[in-house]
Amino acid sequence: MRFTHRAETFPVNTPAAAQIFTVVLSQGPLTRLELARRAGLSPAAVTKAVRPLIEAGYLVEDADEEARPALGRPANLVRVDGGRALFLGIKVTGDEIIGVLTDLCCRIRAARHVPLTDRDLKVVLAATADVVQELLVEADGLGVGVLGLGIAVSGDVDRGAGVVRYSPFLEWRDVPLAELAATTTGLPVTVDNDVRALTVAEQWFGAGAGLSDFAVVTVGAGIGCGLVVHGKVVAGAHGVAGEIGHVTVDPAGPLCHCGNRGCVEAIAGDAAILRRIRETTGVDVPDTASAVRLARRGVPGAREAYARAGEAIGRGIATVANLLGPERVIISGEGLAAHDLFAEQIRDAFAAAAFGSAAQCDVQTRPLPFEEWARGAAATAIQSFIRADTQGAP
Amino acid sequence: MRFTHRAETFPVNTPAAAQIFTVVLSQGPLTRLELARRAGLSPAAVTKAVRPLIEAGYLVEDADEEARPALGRPANLVRVDGGRALFLGIKVTGDEIIGVLTDLCCRIRAARHVPLTDRDLKVVLAATADVVQELLVEADGLGVGVLGLGIAVSGDVDRGAGVVRYSPFLEWRDVPLAELAATTTGLPVTVDNDVRALTVAEQWFGAGAGLSDFAVVTVGAGIGCGLVVHGKVVAGAHGVAGEIGHVTVDPAGPLCHCGNRGCVEAIAGDAAILRRIRETTGVDVPDTASAVRLARRGVPGAREAYARAGEAIGRGIATVANLLGPERVIISGEGLAAHDLFAEQIRDAFAAAAFGSAAQCDVQTRPLPFEEWARGAAATAIQSFIRADTQGAP
Ligand SMILES: [Zn+2]
Ligand SMILES: [Zn+2]
Repeated sequence: MRFTHRAETFPVNTPAAAQIFTVVLSQGPLTRLELARRAGLSPAAVTKAVRPLIEAGYLVEDADEEARPALGRPANLVRVDGGRALFLGIKVTGDEIIGVLTDLCCRIRAARHVPLTDRDLKVVLAATADVVQELLVEADGLGVGVLGLGIAVSGDVDRGAGVVRYSPFLEWRDVPLAELAATTTGLPVTVDNDVRALTVAEQWFGAGAGLSDFAVVTVGAGIGCGLVVHGKVVAGAHGVAGEIGHVTVDPAGPLCHCGNRGCVEAIAGDAAILRRIRETTGVDVPDTASAVRLARRGVPGAREAYARAGEAIGRGIATVANLLGPERVIISGEGLAAHDLFAEQIRDAFAAAAFGSAAQCDVQTRPLPFEEWARGAAATAIQSFIRADTQGAP
Repeated sequence: MRFTHRAETFPVNTPAAAQIFTVVLSQGPLTRLELARRAGLSPAAVTKAVRPLIEAGYLVEDADEEARPALGRPANLVRVDGGRALFLGIKVTGDEIIGVLTDLCCRIRAARHVPLTDRDLKVVLAATADVVQELLVEADGLGVGVLGLGIAVSGDVDRGAGVVRYSPFLEWRDVPLAELAATTTGLPVTVDNDVRALTVAEQWFGAGAGLSDFAVVTVGAGIGCGLVVHGKVVAGAHGVAGEIGHVTVDPAGPLCHCGNRGCVEAIAGDAAILRRIRETTGVDVPDTASAVRLARRGVPGAREAYARAGEAIGRGIATVANLLGPERVIISGEGLAAHDLFAEQIRDAFAAAAFGSAAQCDVQTRPLPFEEWARGAAATAIQSFIRADTQGAP
């Protein structure tokens, strides 16, 4: 079964119009005046950009009933009609494909998981196609077009070229994934690094909305970091950025897969915590869930392994804060299931290692369901859709 | 003696025009076509912006004699007339005021040093006024107007507000230095953090010209870092950024003045190196020059202190590269006088700690004369002058 989609383009063709739509999307509903202020543009520019977007149904303008003045008309608010378009997001992990169907405001409407028996490219593409088709059936039921697909993969991903340069987890090198997936699904495809995709979701639809400088730190199998500086996600000149997992915490610490000792990930990654608990308690803990149970029962070696992990994460976050001075750091990822076991140590280590006023940085924890990674991929597809027509514009 | 200056404003009032002038200033001479390409603007926008700048004498356009074709006219190149305007830069250190007079291309035309007997604000302002007046006499001899003054101070500086929030070195808190110095000198004043000012000089007139992502690491009494991300200098949401000096290298290492142990600065700052040499050799080395001599004579304890310093700096630079993936890192500062004693260790530690392709980052050393700090201050004044009229523009 193949689906055919009418290609729909966004009625925006200048960077100013794309920016105005993005401000409404991430910070709306807003009055036109407030919208002009936040976009740094004139009210005339807002009027010019908003009209075709209202005509095409992407924006709606209605009365702000809550702010109704005693006399006269209430102010009008501009907001995005989230139901106007649908997008797909796929996260490829080592053992499954997770897919979500979202609306234009990146709200999840449906989700699917398919187990992966193999990390071979053909197997992954076939499983991706299966998940996409199931979600397209859901979308057909909603009667709204699916306008883009985002795919998130760990490792070095060149989003502009649509190529996975190197994914150690999948053992892929130089895979033109965007092109291959576009051929398979018939959809416009955006490929990005998974942590950066999650960061886009926070920037546009989450705790980073409206902030020009913030960081997302993900805790779990690996320790990752997405950085937004001057309003844009940092990609790195050579494909590497946000490697908080390989900030050195203790040069005499455990060996890391990167070849160094005492990296944050070598102390606070899931595998490192399990190894430490086995070493100190002698218990052969099989997985993270058992390790968490052991620590919650108060077994000292297990508690200590989580405390060390929290300290390492806190120091890593302080390094980010000391170098970049973000307004906010959002800690997220599956590892936050053990949040009660290391939150205090994260906070204390951050406070001790933050330099001067960098300690004022707002460090938040935000436990996320695993679908969030796929939602991040959908956010990159929404971003690409909005900007597609403006890439070459002045 | 007081000088009176005719306020001269720059004939540019749109961000596009300021950007075009900046591209010529930092990357010129260029043909109009190449200029349009690098500024990401249309040739028509370039023509519109260039005309008033040529009329006012800031830009000149002349034939590129080197690229003369066999037949026909040579291409015209647009370049800045550096002699069109002069600027002053002042660096305030603990024991002296250093001042430079530069042209519009930030080339030093004269320099002055005045010793400081006291770090009291009034004493510093009086010494600054002395240096400024001496340099204004030099400028009068050149017959060109001085259009701005930059002042660089270490610590937390709010450039936008013109306020030194906190300078531990000078023991200043919340000093409205820009306003005070403007009253004393009659010039428009820009105040910035010294490392950020040096970074602006590299971005506009040095090894960072044309790069969107690079770092400047300064080695000496302190270990500092200026970061350019997405084409803009990082200032930090809370006034702290680039604190590479307080990246932890060894949690069991020497105590740092920030309260932590084993920071880069606690191992590689001038005072830390002296302390280490005294501890290991028993020799009461009085200053950095003696320490360098001791190490160059091959005294093992002294050589080892520099080797450890190099390793700490290399690790700190790798942390910056792993988090931000800059195209280039420029190592600079007075500490580079000892370059031969730790260059190898910097290189090796960087290579070992850089994650994956982050190791491709181009790490350069660039020994700078001490006037460079004051030149950095002049660069911020040039930057403020060019952007002054465009701040409120859309
Ligand atoms: Zn590592
Ligand atoms: Zn420190």
